[in-house]
Amino acid sequence: MASVQDITVSASINLLSALAFLLAFAFLRLQPFNDRVYFPKWYKKGIRASPRRSGPMMKKFINLDFRTYLKFWNWMPAALRMPEPELIDHAGLDSAVYVRIYLLGLKIFVPIAILAFAVLVPVNWTGSTLDDIKDLTYSNIDKLSISNVPSGSIRLVAHIIMAYVFTFWTCYVLYKEYQIITNKRLQFLASEKRRPDQFTVLVRNVPSDPDESVSEHVEHFFCVNHPDHYLSHQVVYNANKLAKLVEDKMSLNNWLTYYQTRFERNPKKRPRTKTGFWGLWGKNVDAIDYYTEEIEKISKEEAAERETVMSDPKAIVPAAFVSFKSRWGAAVCAQTQQSSNPTLWLTEWAPEPRDVYWNNLAIPYVELTVKKLLMAAAMFFLTFFFMIPIAFVQSLASIDGIKKVFPFLKTLIEKESVKSIVQGFLPGIVLKIFLAFLPTILMTMSKVEGHTSLSSLDRRSAGKYHLFLIVNVFFGSIITGAAFQQLQKFLNQSPSEIPRTVGVAIPMKATFFITYIMVDGWAGIAAEILRLVPLIIYHLKNTFLVKTEKDREQAMDPGCIAFPTSEPRIQLYFMLGLVYAVVTPFILPFIIVFFAFAYVVFRHQIINVYDQKYESAATFWPDVHRRVIIGLIISQLLLLGLLSTKNAAQSTPLLLVLPVLTIWFHRFCKGRFESAFVKFPLQEAMVKDTLEKATEPNLNLKAYLQDAYVHPVFKGVEINRPSVIDDEENNPLVSTKRKSGKVSKASSRGGSP
Amino acid sequence: MASVQDITVSASINLLSALAFLLAFAFLRLQPFNDRVYFPKWYKKGIRASPRRSGPMMKKFINLDFRTYLKFWNWMPAALRMPEPELIDHAGLDSAVYVRIYLLGLKIFVPIAILAFAVLVPVNWTGSTLDDIKDLTYSNIDKLSISNVPSGSIRLVAHIIMAYVFTFWTCYVLYKEYQIITNKRLQFLASEKRRPDQFTVLVRNVPSDPDESVSEHVEHFFCVNHPDHYLSHQVVYNANKLAKLVEDKMSLNNWLTYYQTRFERNPKKRPRTKTGFWGLWGKNVDAIDYYTEEIEKISKEEAAERETVMSDPKAIVPAAFVSFKSRWGAAVCAQTQQSSNPTLWLTEWAPEPRDVYWNNLAIPYVELTVKKLLMAAAMFFLTFFFMIPIAFVQSLASIDGIKKVFPFLKTLIEKESVKSIVQGFLPGIVLKIFLAFLPTILMTMSKVEGHTSLSSLDRRSAGKYHLFLIVNVFFGSIITGAAFQQLQKFLNQSPSEIPRTVGVAIPMKATFFITYIMVDGWAGIAAEILRLVPLIIYHLKNTFLVKTEKDREQAMDPGCIAFPTSEPRIQLYFMLGLVYAVVTPFILPFIIVFFAFAYVVFRHQIINVYDQKYESAATFWPDVHRRVIIGLIISQLLLLGLLSTKNAAQSTPLLLVLPVLTIWFHRFCKGRFESAFVKFPLQEAMVKDTLEKATEPNLNLKAYLQDAYVHPVFKGVEINRPSVIDDEENNPLVSTKRKSGKVSKASSRGGSP
Repeated sequence: MASVQDITVSASINLLSALAFLLAFAFLRLQPFNDRVYFPKWYKKGIRASPRRSGPMMKKFINLDFRTYLKFWNWMPAALRMPEPELIDHAGLDSAVYVRIYLLGLKIFVPIAILAFAVLVPVNWTGSTLDDIKDLTYSNIDKLSISNVPSGSIRLVAHIIMAYVFTFWTCYVLYKEYQIITNKRLQFLASEKRRPDQFTVLVRNVPSDPDESVSEHVEHFFCVNHPDHYLSHQVVYNANKLAKLVEDKMSLNNWLTYYQTRFERNPKKRPRTKTGFWGLWGKNVDAIDYYTEEIEKISKEEAAERETVMSDPKAIVPAAFVSFKSRWGAAVCAQTQQSSNPTLWLTEWAPEPRDVYWNNLAIPYVELTVKKLLMAAAMFFLTFFFMIPIAFVQSLASIDGIKKVFPFLKTLIEKESVKSIVQGFLPGIVLKIFLAFLPTILMTMSKVEGHTSLSSLDRRSAGKYHLFLIVNVFFGSIITGAAFQQLQKFLNQSPSEIPRTVGVAIPMKATFFITYIMVDGWAGIAAEILRLVPLIIYHLKNTFLVKTEKDREQAMDPGCIAFPTSEPRIQLYFMLGLVYAVVTPFILPFIIVFFAFAYVVFRHQIINVYDQKYESAATFWPDVHRRVIIGLIISQLLLLGLLSTKNAAQSTPLLLVLPVLTIWFHRFCKGRFESAFVKFPLQEAMVKDTLEKATEPNLNLKAYLQDAYVHPVFKGVEINRPSVIDDEENNPLVSTKRKSGKVSKASSRGGSP
Repeated sequence: MASVQDITVSASINLLSALAFLLAFAFLRLQPFNDRVYFPKWYKKGIRASPRRSGPMMKKFINLDFRTYLKFWNWMPAALRMPEPELIDHAGLDSAVYVRIYLLGLKIFVPIAILAFAVLVPVNWTGSTLDDIKDLTYSNIDKLSISNVPSGSIRLVAHIIMAYVFTFWTCYVLYKEYQIITNKRLQFLASEKRRPDQFTVLVRNVPSDPDESVSEHVEHFFCVNHPDHYLSHQVVYNANKLAKLVEDKMSLNNWLTYYQTRFERNPKKRPRTKTGFWGLWGKNVDAIDYYTEEIEKISKEEAAERETVMSDPKAIVPAAFVSFKSRWGAAVCAQTQQSSNPTLWLTEWAPEPRDVYWNNLAIPYVELTVKKLLMAAAMFFLTFFFMIPIAFVQSLASIDGIKKVFPFLKTLIEKESVKSIVQGFLPGIVLKIFLAFLPTILMTMSKVEGHTSLSSLDRRSAGKYHLFLIVNVFFGSIITGAAFQQLQKFLNQSPSEIPRTVGVAIPMKATFFITYIMVDGWAGIAAEILRLVPLIIYHLKNTFLVKTEKDREQAMDPGCIAFPTSEPRIQLYFMLGLVYAVVTPFILPFIIVFFAFAYVVFRHQIINVYDQKYESAATFWPDVHRRVIIGLIISQLLLLGLLSTKNAAQSTPLLLVLPVLTIWFHRFCKGRFESAFVKFPLQEAMVKDTLEKATEPNLNLKAYLQDAYVHPVFKGVEINRPSVIDDEENNPLVSTKRKSGKVSKASSRGGSP
């Protein structure tokens, strides 16, 4: 167990690194040439635009106004200043609700921390069990924890009462928050402008008909069964191959641009490339010619494929976007069952056009259930046995493994210094690499499961990641050992023994988790705001690829909230807070600092940086709510186990009431609020319909919905670059060094097509 | 362990008692004066009517045609002869599908039994482990069971393969059956005549409005939100008190009739009664005058209450039956969410008028969830701790307890013979009484949970009873000891140890369960067909109460399938069969006999006797399916535990695949079929609407639906007996003794209307 000194040292190191990140951020964000990295959202919105034509040239790239540096911290109040309605308007409800998760953390833990420090810390401190045990190492932190209370002491009553108080407070805050979010969602949906998805329903599993095409069949079916409401429909083409071609062409275009830029900078030497993978292998050819040729080839291929897809009836998948004359009609169709066979004519509210995940629209029912089974099994093995393949790779990545595979490295790695590095770091790096790939693996698994919108994919991946974190990070840290060893241990223990085993280990791991919070939480959030990777990539792209204003627009990578990874991580902090609130309240201030800091940082990010890929109107909130409840229940069971080892077994029935009440509370909230996130009240639809009919009686809805749900590749025919290449200021980062050359180039290029 | 001889003796006793019941039935059913007990369904349908006017008088009451006695068994082929479509038409889909549960048992277990006897019995028989153990008592039955196979023997592969084969066969049959039932249900619903519930939706939790009455509020809401479809609505009155008064009046009327009959038979002495409970205590008064007065009093009270209910706006509960112009409109309203607050304006498809459970229509959301929580907790305690209060009562019902409470019985019960009876039987009787009351207790719990239809109450009670049977009969018999002791045992064992503990005990209990099947199954079913209790009650009523043909109609108690108790009992047999199929196949023939016998008996009963209270179109099938799956999974887990004690631990992963696949199969079926039992496809609704519009263009639907959903007490204003008291033939059982009086009466009745 670490002492207070250790914690202090760790805290100062992490505070310093967080501070360093923040200072770097404060400095970098004030440089105009980083403007597009730190304020991309405003550019996307068209409110901010480079170049700023006024002022001296230098000022465009480096901020020389030293007064602004003195106010480097002023992004924080600025981030907090924007009122929430404006924030929702500016960044969307998803983002605004996402930062409220951090606020929820503050709302739950600040009063809990105050109460815990007022009641539990004195009770623990004066417990003086640890004073008597001289031979055991313990720190002052442990004196603040429940470990310092003697077994069977009457003092434990305070902990039980506090467990009740904390549970009720958490549930109260959760209830209020669910209510607020529900109202915000309903308001948001009610105040939304006309959008295609309000009128549209996604129909899947259209049965095949020998006499009719899919399109005719859909039309006839809905004309018959929704005669007063059906308006039109849009079939879905299987354009996966076409989309691949378009993507390839984009990438080839990028390479062409890169070599053209190189050639322009150094006109004496035509750049050459190799035809193999990433230009590393293969025949050496002239790069510009090669890529021009390749693009021509792929363009032809693309045109042919486009022709095929549009004309071949087999390219139409048995799914369609069906639009209705009114929101009411769409709401009815989305919520009802169409056919007596519930696996045919499946209707669901269409996602936003940009939220559609096109690849999954045409999976038959049986295939879908088999895929779900396989993914569930895969998830089980991934969670509990992921250490096995990693241990295998780690064994390969050892000294002997490397010697076998790369004999030429033998002399190098047999040096003592290199050897120790390899042995010390390689296994850790292998694990890190796996963990870095984990979100991608989980997302792939979610994709296989066959969800039809990006938002649902994100939500499902978050669920998987949450499970993984609970098993491997939370329980894995408490009971050291790989997950499958835990599993084996748990299978061979009685159900009442498990919380006891874990509960006993809980207080001992407090200092570990405090360090974890500081490293992963504090420093991690500070790194988030610095955006080091987007910063580097932007400047690289800007140097080599950007020619037009539009290119620069594309080079900006505002990113978005990584919901599938960041939300489960927040949940880990909720769980830590709830578990330790009664056991070791000392951990709470660290969690509160995390939530407060993250709240400010993410509020800043969603205002200035992130550009969400879709807007789901906070559909994820029921998941967030459920996971906090899961954390709460785990905390209650672990406390129960802990107290039963403290000779307080008579408290068990008293504490068993808590999870029962919590589960009931969850069901209550589910019934009370969840349908607002799943279903679509007819009353709301009717109100909007009536309003629209009154204000816009002559609206041509059919024209409005015509192309709303067309696969993006059919919309993006104009992905070829615009003819007027406007290259000025294409490279501010570098061009400051060769300011004189810029002007001539800009003028010479003015004539090029 | 019982030997083959024991089993043979037990089998013969039970066979003989079953045969005795059947003979008694065969004799009694041929007597015309029992006609209304054994063929009430035909009377209810109006196809059969007493008295048979032709033939000699004697023949009306006793069957003298001895040839019919020789064919006493011919009810069996008769019961099987009616084809299923006719059966559905005659008895309803609920009943027809109910007997198919027994058929399902035959379909599953006949092939399994053949396979098991062909493969497993030889494998077990030649295992010869038990031959070596001379000191242990074992029977020949055990030589047929898995106990006879040596630990770790290669022979166990046969059992594992059979476990797979049986699982796949069971799932296949379940799938096919689910498909058949689904189609039958859809056909049944499609071919149904026009019924009020097709057009009607039950709306609950109507929010209160300060300016409008409930009725106005409902009308306005649906006029606005379903403008093209809303037709009319029917408010619900809180008529619980009125219904109680009507019921009391009925009972008083019965007593009056009883005393009038007595007075008519013996005109010299006016009957007297006491005013207290059931005429046992209180003032001695003239019975006829007293009851006439009481009836007058209660009639006035009833009229006043009726007035109050009809005029007082507070007597209208916030619920209504809303009718639509088309089935399509009703289907849409039932499946969609109306308001953004999901706890208001809750819509669900209205139950049949006779299926409505009126008392539960007005429970607010919060109260409902609290009640559900309380009932879940109560169910837990009832299941696991029900032995505690019973043990308490049993201790009171001991010799000492009786001496304390009834000192005057002291001398009596201290006699040795009485004492032994009290000590031997009383505890058993206390338990029996509790078990007899159990279905009522469970039904009351379901009522508290707030379901709105009798069918859902039945289904919920069946679920509770099933849980109770699994825990207390199945596991309770295998691991002897009260349920809470089992619970404690399980909590202190590891999860992997539990199937092992139970699994080991399984083969040893085979003979017990064989006896159980014969007593509870064979003899129980034979008793069912004899209908001893309704027989006695009918003749008692007929003697003392029946005056008119209508009274006799009411004295008939055809009864109905006791779904909440009988379905879970069938499930117990399914579970026994599945558990023992691999372990002790010898049990299978007994189960098959049960299923076959029960199938014939219940087919006979639903054709001739039962009169269902409602028709839910087999809504219960998903429950039946799920419970068979539960039995299958339990059997797989127990086999896993059993084999792991047989030194065949390497089979564990192989056997773990089975429950996973079974759960997946369940989810697959759920997705594929369940919505046919829950939702209402728009296509079907549209087809029926269109057809109706074409055939009956001038239908006045509003008039048709006018009074469909009126509380029965408002319909039953004419419950007063018809003015012409028509008393002839009121007592055929007795009247055979006074035949002379009969004829004159019969002729006098010729003129009556």
